[in-house]
Amino acid sequence: MAAGTTDNLSVVLHGPGDLRLENYPIREPGPNEVQLKMHSVGICGSDVHYWQHGRIGDFVVKKPMVLGHEASGTVVKVGASVKHLLPGDRVAIEPGVPRELDEFCKTGRYNLSPTIFFCATPPDDGNLSRFYNHNADFCYKLPHNVTFEEGALIEPLSVGLYACRRGEVTLGSRVLVCGAGPIGIVTLLMAKAMGASQVIVTDMISSRLEKAKECGATLTLQVNKESPQEVASKIESLLGNKPDITIECSGAQSSIQTGIYATRSGGTVVLVGIGNEMATVPLVHAAVREVDLRGVFRYCNTWPLAISMLASKLVNVKPLVTHRFPLEKAHEAFEVSSKGIGLKVMLKCDPNDQNP
Amino acid sequence: MAAGTTDNLSVVLHGPGDLRLENYPIREPGPNEVQLKMHSVGICGSDVHYWQHGRIGDFVVKKPMVLGHEASGTVVKVGASVKHLLPGDRVAIEPGVPRELDEFCKTGRYNLSPTIFFCATPPDDGNLSRFYNHNADFCYKLPHNVTFEEGALIEPLSVGLYACRRGEVTLGSRVLVCGAGPIGIVTLLMAKAMGASQVIVTDMISSRLEKAKECGATLTLQVNKESPQEVASKIESLLGNKPDITIECSGAQSSIQTGIYATRSGGTVVLVGIGNEMATVPLVHAAVREVDLRGVFRYCNTWPLAISMLASKLVNVKPLVTHRFPLEKAHEAFEVSSKGIGLKVMLKCDPNDQNP
Amino acid sequence: MAAGTTDNLSVVLHGPGDLRLENYPIREPGPNEVQLKMHSVGICGSDVHYWQHGRIGDFVVKKPMVLGHEASGTVVKVGASVKHLLPGDRVAIEPGVPRELDEFCKTGRYNLSPTIFFCATPPDDGNLSRFYNHNADFCYKLPHNVTFEEGALIEPLSVGLYACRRGEVTLGSRVLVCGAGPIGIVTLLMAKAMGASQVIVTDMISSRLEKAKECGATLTLQVNKESPQEVASKIESLLGNKPDITIECSGAQSSIQTGIYATRSGGTVVLVGIGNEMATVPLVHAAVREVDLRGVFRYCNTWPLAISMLASKLVNVKPLVTHRFPLEKAHEAFEVSSKGIGLKVMLKCDPNDQNP
Amino acid sequence: MAAGTTDNLSVVLHGPGDLRLENYPIREPGPNEVQLKMHSVGICGSDVHYWQHGRIGDFVVKKPMVLGHEASGTVVKVGASVKHLLPGDRVAIEPGVPRELDEFCKTGRYNLSPTIFFCATPPDDGNLSRFYNHNADFCYKLPHNVTFEEGALIEPLSVGLYACRRGEVTLGSRVLVCGAGPIGIVTLLMAKAMGASQVIVTDMISSRLEKAKECGATLTLQVNKESPQEVASKIESLLGNKPDITIECSGAQSSIQTGIYATRSGGTVVLVGIGNEMATVPLVHAAVREVDLRGVFRYCNTWPLAISMLASKLVNVKPLVTHRFPLEKAHEAFEVSSKGIGLKVMLKCDPNDQNP
Ligand SMILES: NC(=O)c1ccc[n+]([C@@H]2O[C@H](COP(=O)([O-])OP(=O)(O)OC[C@H]3O[C@@H](n4cnc5c(N)ncnc54)[C@H](O)[C@@H]3O)[C@@H](O)[C@H]2O)c1
Ligand SMILES: NC(=O)c1ccc[n+]([C@@H]2O[C@H](COP(=O)([O-])OP(=O)(O)OC[C@H]3O[C@@H](n4cnc5c(N)ncnc54)[C@H](O)[C@@H]3O)[C@@H](O)[C@H]2O)c1
Ligand SMILES: NC(=O)c1ccc[n+]([C@@H]2O[C@H](COP(=O)([O-])OP(=O)(O)OC[C@H]3O[C@@H](n4cnc5c(N)ncnc54)[C@H](O)[C@@H]3O)[C@@H](O)[C@H]2O)c1
Ligand SMILES: NC(=O)c1ccc[n+]([C@@H]2O[C@H](COP(=O)([O-])OP(=O)(O)OC[C@H]3O[C@@H](n4cnc5c(N)ncnc54)[C@H](O)[C@@H]3O)[C@@H](O)[C@H]2O)c1
Ligand SMILES: [Zn+2]
Ligand SMILES: [Zn+2]
Ligand SMILES: [Zn+2]
Ligand SMILES: [Zn+2]
Repeated sequence: MAAGTTDNLSVVLHGPGDLRLENYPIREPGPNEVQLKMHSVGICGSDVHYWQHGRIGDFVVKKPMVLGHEASGTVVKVGASVKHLLPGDRVAIEPGVPRELDEFCKTGRYNLSPTIFFCATPPDDGNLSRFYNHNADFCYKLPHNVTFEEGALIEPLSVGLYACRRGEVTLGSRVLVCGAGPIGIVTLLMAKAMGASQVIVTDMISSRLEKAKECGATLTLQVNKESPQEVASKIESLLGNKPDITIECSGAQSSIQTGIYATRSGGTVVLVGIGNEMATVPLVHAAVREVDLRGVFRYCNTWPLAISMLASKLVNVKPLVTHRFPLEKAHEAFEVSSKGIGLKVMLKCDPNDQNP
Repeated sequence: MAAGTTDNLSVVLHGPGDLRLENYPIREPGPNEVQLKMHSVGICGSDVHYWQHGRIGDFVVKKPMVLGHEASGTVVKVGASVKHLLPGDRVAIEPGVPRELDEFCKTGRYNLSPTIFFCATPPDDGNLSRFYNHNADFCYKLPHNVTFEEGALIEPLSVGLYACRRGEVTLGSRVLVCGAGPIGIVTLLMAKAMGASQVIVTDMISSRLEKAKECGATLTLQVNKESPQEVASKIESLLGNKPDITIECSGAQSSIQTGIYATRSGGTVVLVGIGNEMATVPLVHAAVREVDLRGVFRYCNTWPLAISMLASKLVNVKPLVTHRFPLEKAHEAFEVSSKGIGLKVMLKCDPNDQNP
Repeated sequence: MAAGTTDNLSVVLHGPGDLRLENYPIREPGPNEVQLKMHSVGICGSDVHYWQHGRIGDFVVKKPMVLGHEASGTVVKVGASVKHLLPGDRVAIEPGVPRELDEFCKTGRYNLSPTIFFCATPPDDGNLSRFYNHNADFCYKLPHNVTFEEGALIEPLSVGLYACRRGEVTLGSRVLVCGAGPIGIVTLLMAKAMGASQVIVTDMISSRLEKAKECGATLTLQVNKESPQEVASKIESLLGNKPDITIECSGAQSSIQTGIYATRSGGTVVLVGIGNEMATVPLVHAAVREVDLRGVFRYCNTWPLAISMLASKLVNVKPLVTHRFPLEKAHEAFEVSSKGIGLKVMLKCDPNDQNP
Repeated sequence: MAAGTTDNLSVVLHGPGDLRLENYPIREPGPNEVQLKMHSVGICGSDVHYWQHGRIGDFVVKKPMVLGHEASGTVVKVGASVKHLLPGDRVAIEPGVPRELDEFCKTGRYNLSPTIFFCATPPDDGNLSRFYNHNADFCYKLPHNVTFEEGALIEPLSVGLYACRRGEVTLGSRVLVCGAGPIGIVTLLMAKAMGASQVIVTDMISSRLEKAKECGATLTLQVNKESPQEVASKIESLLGNKPDITIECSGAQSSIQTGIYATRSGGTVVLVGIGNEMATVPLVHAAVREVDLRGVFRYCNTWPLAISMLASKLVNVKPLVTHRFPLEKAHEAFEVSSKGIGLKVMLKCDPNDQNP
């Protein structure tokens, strides 16, 4: 146990609406694990959703589960087989760890492995705790010029990065981002960092579009009651061209339709937003213009790249954090997060270091 | 004009149901064109559709149009700038010729060029004639061991080849082909030639599935009133695995749904079949398993490859031709083709050579 | 321990020329391991090389090492965490097992992981034994219609398969294979299975070219004292075109040069053969024609595909086995293999089942 | 003819060292051509080389040839078939225009077409003139916020852009650029614009490295008499990692060797620099670590992207222009350019508008 803290306060969800702060036992790390003193953990929309509803789709909280998966901390113990980390190392945590070297894993798409461990997806515990053990191969050392909070933000950033990668955003791309929630915003940031020449962002809420403007959107478009075709043709006029790539981050059916109508022939619509199970879309319109539809399930192979990007200051994510609470005030933090005030709420797990 | 024939009998569509045999004028070939003495032209579903309805979607026959686009013939004259062809060369004709070197063309996806010329797509004339001029760069010399009819069949084969390429069929792929019409059958043939280890074909009509069996399908499945999920799970049991790639060749909404449910995570559904404008599909199911949806619009860059495949006897397409008629009997040929008897009806344009 | 055998006879290399048959201890399988009763193990050129020289490049046999890495057997025990295998399962063994989930592994290129375990590459023991433990994720169940020897042959086949994949061999490809040793032959087989329309094979030894002919080479070319340019232009005349892809399987400098001169602009030369450290090659000729040079280090992600290919009889590898010896006669087997008589020598490890 | 100018002063090379200013006839534009009033034309290393030596490799100046290929101007006349351009449009000129729709062209790699027209590559005339006709499909309209000189600079920029694309530079890439001449510098600029997190540049000349620093190099390394292995290991220490991609822009054999040693396993060495015909390189070292070698021949499909990048101010190329001369002072301009003073010398072809 690391000096200075004796408890292992953890944010545990017992059922819908039943969030408790409990002192969890501290396990010894396994041979491939490190024990981490947690520093900063962001609250994600999914944490809030589990808290409020006790489930997301087929994933149901059936036994108490620690929340949290956007996290960074400091190594305090290393398992016997761990070679690349030492106590004292500051690390960002990738929350998904494949349990088997199955075909998905072997071919570099481990996010699709059906048996993957994932922090705070039932039944797997997350890391909103004082101490937490994690597979060492999924803890990435942070350079001195990257803060713990930047490290924790790599998780949401990874969704945007991976979405842009699936859409093959590159220098000079024209990109349409649908939805200016946190995921739309990180997607915008990443598209810009990858060299997109124009990024147009849509939403229905003007304040969200203002945030997008601040974060570098070339153009924004507030959508209302227009038909998807009308939105698509507005986008074309605004850009002077159809976008090469649409990254759909709202999950709304009308927005997926807009994406298909808007994207240039031979382009790609990336489906990040998760809406209703069935969607009615102009599939023939996509097919005969070879507008491909590609899904996104979380991310893979993003941490090293995000770290090298943060270290070299290619993108500034610090403004994303709008609220901070000590771990003890988790209830308050969840309340704030659920109200959609601000963008990212950080829980500070180390009583001796509440800095960013 | 070539010796031996003096007329230019052509199959001209004047409006829905109004097919006429007319003697068309013979133009001199332009500088980049060759003049061809036509030999064999297959009747395509789209030719029949134009004949019956005078339109396909937004493409409307507004003035008389020569039908036919699955064709081969012999060079009789060459334009001033033509270098790689000589009178006497036997060639297969690629019916789509880009009119501009636009961005689609420059990046190797000329099939998406909005201004492309395409034989027998209004208002562009096809090649069901005695003589026909075509851009020399889209006429491909046939080796001695490839027949004219094989040359004409490269057009439908190209749809299958391109669909397999878009789906990235490769050695050992498990492939689901939905629909056993002519397009499903050529897709099956191509998937096998590309090394697919298992190809399962679905249809509702048992005779079509028998044809698929003859053409090398590993398995066939007759679909009836089962739900798409049920069909998908039957396919998984039959194969022992989910297919890597689904190539949808029916256009039916339920079949697209089946394709999404059936395909393994990280796989691809290729949309070849063209159904209703809007389709209701389990898009979230596709997105979170990263099952990509890719459309197909005709083909590009398939002729040289198909010729080298036919020359090396990698696939046997000769059995696809079930009927032959001399050009003069075009009406009869269209009647037979429209009844769905047999698979491919060939019109023989050269009165002096009616061989395959 | 499995019934019927009590010893663990193993083929152990103690130093150059010092091969011993020893009774090795049998370890209990670890949690992720299976214990295998070995059935068939092919002798590889590298086994022979270690036996004769005690080293390959920087890999030096410093302590006794069991040889063998082209292997198949039957599961007799399973470790506590193993889920997909049961005692009695017949499996093929992939000899390379990454020790860490490093970046290479996470991105699907685990063959490049610098800390990988590899059977019979010092200091890692191989599987020329009666019993052998291996990571269960790298043991692949064989279907009933695939023999143990076919299972063992997946290892050399994998080199050919991976080389073709790196070269992007596909339907209709024209392929030049340089060198008709075992690796050249499996590359030829795989190129054909992937749909190559023409495969031309070169060697200096006519008997090897005859073998290539038997295995399906479209053309063969015996090289002698001609310059690489001369060989390249002969190849072009024979094929009627420059090959799209060259797969160099001899390691000879002159043959790499030939590959560069011979390959069409925009094509690929795959470097499988391993020759001298430094090579003098016409690099400008490659660069300005965008003929890419791609290396091959063993293989990755080939077993499932090879099994589905063998199960569906897409390729016949049985004729590759020219000699069989019981494990006890390992010395004799190594003598035969080292003389280059025949193609593949199999050691039969199970005294109760010496069938293919 | 456009009002205001009556001559067609042109910079014509008659043989080594024999550069003349001559009044060339003005041709009417062909049906697919536009006639351009030239504005800015950069002098390229190849122009200087032709001037000094009368040849580059197999390309020999056998009859008088107009120099210049880095150019922009204003449309003054349009051919009969031209649709997307009008007199008055300001355009950048892509100097390579395929003459045939051959397989290279059809597959999107038209730069490899053996019969391509290329400005100022013998025997094709360049555009260092008052007036010049060019294929309209290879003239790209400049938006109002992109200057003529930026338009002319797209040509050298395209080499860097295409090289980065061939190397698959992306967000977070670590890139080694060897050689800090004009080509090394544009490659650096493009790598940064594509999101490279670290770009290290080598050269032997310190002033060139200072320029690289100014243009955004993360690190520079002056090479002297160290062995390629030594340079490679210095690079690794400086970066803290091996680079993912090396883009070789010097053509020096030792530098290609450095690139191979320096690049991480699974990475890519892009060969832009053109050195001696034969090069001696550690090919086995590249092959067994799967470090691929990819050539670059000019570029293709770069203009639209470069324009959208310039319009959105993703890169600042204006500082590259260090000298300007009116067309009449071409001799002086060539003298300056050949002395390697500054970076890019611009010739201003329009007597009425000598602005950037
Ligand atoms: N695929 C994945 O791996 C993954 C990962 C994380 C989040 N997600 C999903 O991404 C989506 C976005 O997440 P978030 O946290 O930003 O959610 P959010 O709810 O905060 O943001 C969604 C935004 O979309 C806007 N919107 C709604 N309808 C719209 C329309 N028709 N057009 C334009 N904008 C519209 C909303 O106003 C809102 O601002 C969610 O559906 C979430 O489930 C998916
Ligand atoms: N995308 C393109 O470029 C392109 C090119 C050519 C044809 N097409 C389209 O491809 C499709 C197939 O063409 P075809 O000539 O083979 O047509 P077809 O009508 O002869 O064949 C379609 C087959 O699908 C079967 N089918 C119908 N519903 C089914 C279901 N739910 N499940 C399984 N099978 C079902 C039918 O029984 C029929 O046998 C058509 O939609 C056509 O428009 C597209
Ligand atoms: N990269 C890898 O992962 C990998 C894996 C296995 C083997 N290898 C290498 O592949 C090569 C082939 O292995 P093998 O077991 O078939 O070896 P081998 O020695 O049996 O076969 C090589 C063949 O090349 C022929 N040859 C020699 N010079 C030639 C020339 N100039 N032109 C044409 N043919 C020529 C020889 O006559 C011989 O038949 C070896 O260099 C081996 O080290 C590499
Ligand atoms: N492939 C193509 O399509 C293409 C296009 C344009 C230019 N080029 C080639 O690119 C190269 C660069 O062009 P440029 O105009 O910048 O030439 P340049 O001569 O101005 O620049 C080359 C630089 O490399 C440096 N250099 C020499 N040896 C070196 C070494 N061992 N290590 C590091 N640096 C070294 C030189 O000092 C010089 O600064 C030339 O070889 C040119 O022919 C190729
Ligand atoms: Zn999250
Ligand atoms: Zn057709
Ligand atoms: Zn081997
Ligand atoms: Zn230039």
